[in-house]
Formats: sequence, structure tokens, C-alpha cells
Amino acid sequence: MNAIDKRLAELGIELPVPAKPVANYVGYVQSGNLVFTAGQITMKAGKVEYQGKVGKDFTVEEGAAAARLCAINIIAQVKDACGGDLSRVKRVVKLVGFVNCPVEFADHPKVINGASDLMVEVFGEAGKHARSAVGAGSLPLNVAVEVEAIVEIA
Amino acid sequence: MNAIDKRLAELGIELPVPAKPVANYVGYVQSGNLVFTAGQITMKAGKVEYQGKVGKDFTVEEGAAAARLCAINIIAQVKDACGGDLSRVKRVVKLVGFVNCPVEFADHPKVINGASDLMVEVFGEAGKHARSAVGAGSLPLNVAVEVEAIVEIA
Amino acid sequence: MNAIDKRLAELGIELPVPAKPVANYVGYVQSGNLVFTAGQITMKAGKVEYQGKVGKDFTVEEGAAAARLCAINIIAQVKDACGGDLSRVKRVVKLVGFVNCPVEFADHPKVINGASDLMVEVFGEAGKHARSAVGAGSLPLNVAVEVEAIVEIA
Repeated sequence: MNAIDKRLAELGIELPVPAKPVANYVGYVQSGNLVFTAGQITMKAGKVEYQGKVGKDFTVEEGAAAARLCAINIIAQVKDACGGDLSRVKRVVKLVGFVNCPVEFADHPKVINGASDLMVEVFGEAGKHARSAVGAGSLPLNVAVEVEAIVEIA
Repeated sequence: MNAIDKRLAELGIELPVPAKPVANYVGYVQSGNLVFTAGQITMKAGKVEYQGKVGKDFTVEEGAAAARLCAINIIAQVKDACGGDLSRVKRVVKLVGFVNCPVEFADHPKVINGASDLMVEVFGEAGKHARSAVGAGSLPLNVAVEVEAIVEIA
Repeated sequence: MNAIDKRLAELGIELPVPAKPVANYVGYVQSGNLVFTAGQITMKAGKVEYQGKVGKDFTVEEGAAAARLCAINIIAQVKDACGGDLSRVKRVVKLVGFVNCPVEFADHPKVINGASDLMVEVFGEAGKHARSAVGAGSLPLNVAVEVEAIVEIA
């Protein structure tokens, strides 16, 4: 058990088996040292959670919890890319977070902080990333948040 | 005629001359082994097709056909990046697909499958990519779908 | 003062001190030769400008000015990544521009040209980039435009 696995255990996070997409795309692709993940949604134990719009069906705090769940699914994909060894993560390079919300919503940063904060809780300084937070008119399966990542690994 | 050109011919796909943007941007930029394409829309033979929203003006199946058309335009850009030799494509790394749709739409994955499926039909295993599918409130020229790509070439 | 600094001065552009995000993310991350910036919004001298939707609260021309402001903030981040020496910029690789606009808006390219044009005014041929322009249902702090970039540096 390396330092990252210990940290995940301390946070009470059990990584899921990374979702295997049923279509002609995959959960991540590595090119050079960069791992590009598919957009991760609010799946938990094989079920879709947080279906609805932030600022209408969910509070900002619930939206942040949804973003955190997306980030857990990103880490599960990255662990697979690392052959199970998350200590190979050198840097979380970029997150793009899409928030499913009404057109007057403006608190996207607070929502996507749920994903950003988890990256730093888990990876420390290496978890600090460039980030874009954007409002989507709609998202797949009507999930509240979708987050994609670029991660540099050793 | 290499294997990829043969496959395109079998699929009845004639690649367009890649669109030359009229503004201060270009159809793709290569950095290292990665080709980053501009967002490709539903242009065919110099005309814009599929103008409208999926789930309102177009069915999901029509949306998938629109996504496939975007993917054909991506392959045309990548062919140019490869100096005409698509056998230099090592991996389609990432697709981001934006669907122009009403706020209650939830079938984005089925729409963007039109692009994902074509990549695998053309490039086989090398066509399998990480993917995000997102709902845009609106898109340029009111097109139904826009897709951008990152492709690793030799 | 190198050629790029002179060009900025000729254009009357004074780069801001790059915004330091208050959350667990940063303004940019470098991986290899690529600098990935955070999504930059319409901040000027520490204040948020252009709050509203293009095509409703702002004209297309005002939207382009908002996009130009985002691009100035991108260049400020990239200058920091270059240790202050913008002549190290080899290529602006990719811009993604999100326009906060009503669902019937279709002039996203003209808006994001405000960012694209500035890149070429400042960096010349090296400023020509692949680009996606997309309609966001909403954006953080209700800003009119958000732009993110990937830039290759020496």
C-alpha cells in the first residue's frame, strides 16, 4: 500500500472498478506520459447518481459532491492507466468540468471545486491542476456534472 | 492505396479537401506527435448541413449521422497533417463531442457514437479513443454537432 | 524588451499580473513543452467585466472584445510559464472558446475571433492555432466568454 492508497483509505474512498464503456471508446488513452481520460460522470457502484440540474434540482453543495464523485471515477481510470500504482502520478495537468445547470447559474467554480479539492486531498501538490469550469445546457443521462482530465504519469 | 484508404473506399467515404478556416486559426496544429484539430462541424462539399437541434429538429439517429460527418472532416484534417498518409495514425487519443440540443436532452452518447463508431470502422483498434460527450446550449451556424480530436501520429 | 513585448506595447496591451486562483487549481500547468492554461475569463485589473450573455446583453462586437480580454489573460499566464520571456512561445496550439449566449445564437466564431486575432497580432504565424468555438448555457460569474489554451514553449 503506497502513500496514495493510504490517503484514499484515510479519506474513506474505495475506488470503483473503472467503468468499461460499452461503445467504441475507452476510459482513457495514454500518449507519451499523458493520460487523457474520457469524461467521467456520476456513476457509483454501477448506478447513475445526481440526475438533474445544479441550481434547480441540486444545491451548489450537492453539485460539489457530484463533482467529487466524477473525480473519484477519474482516479479509478488513472489507477488502471498506472497498472494499479497511483504513486506513478506526476501531475494532474488539467480538469475540464461541465455543470448541468439553468442558464442563469453562475457558481460553476464552487461546484467543480468538489473535483479540484479531491485531487489535492489525494495527490497533494501534484494534484494542483489547470482547470476550466463551464455550464453545459445538458449532459448525458441528465447527470449534474461531468469532468474530464489530463494526467501526467511516470 | 494503403489499408486505411482502402477501408475508407469500402465504406464509400470520399474525404473532402480539408476546410481552410477564413479566420486567424487553422484546421489543425501538430505538437510533437500529437495533432490537435479545430472543432469540426457538419460541412459537406462546402455547404453546412444539419442546422438545428438534436431532440427537436433532428432525431438521435440523424444526430449520429451529423456526428459521423464531423468525424469525416476530422479525418480529412488528420490526413493533411500526415502528408496524405493515414497509415501514420498511431492512435485516436481523444474526441470531445458537443451536441446542440434542448436542456432536457440526455442521449448525447448515442449521438456522438456516430463519430466514435466511424473512428473504429476506419482505424480499427487504433481508432479507440477517450471521449467526452456534452450538451452545448448552441453551436456555430446552429449546426447540430461539433467534434474536436487529438490524434497521435508517427 | 524582446519582439513580443514590443508588439504588446505597440498594441497598447499591458499584461496583468496573472490571476492566482483561490481554489485548489492553478493558472497553468506545464507538461513537457506544452502549457495548459486554466479557462480564462473577462477579468481586468482584478474586476470582472462583461457579465451577461452575447446576443442578449452584449453585441457580437462586444463579445469579441470580451474574448480578446480572455486572450490577454491567457498571454499573462503563458508569460509566467515562460519565466517572463514570451519569445519562448513556439506555437499557440489550441484555443477552446466558450460563449455564454442564448440557445438561438449562432455567431460564436465571430466572438472567438477576438481571441484568435489577438494571438496572431501578438505572435504572428506562431499564433495560428486550432480552435473550437462552442455555446455554453452559462459561465462562471455570468461572464460572456471563457477561453482556455494549449501553448507549446521552448
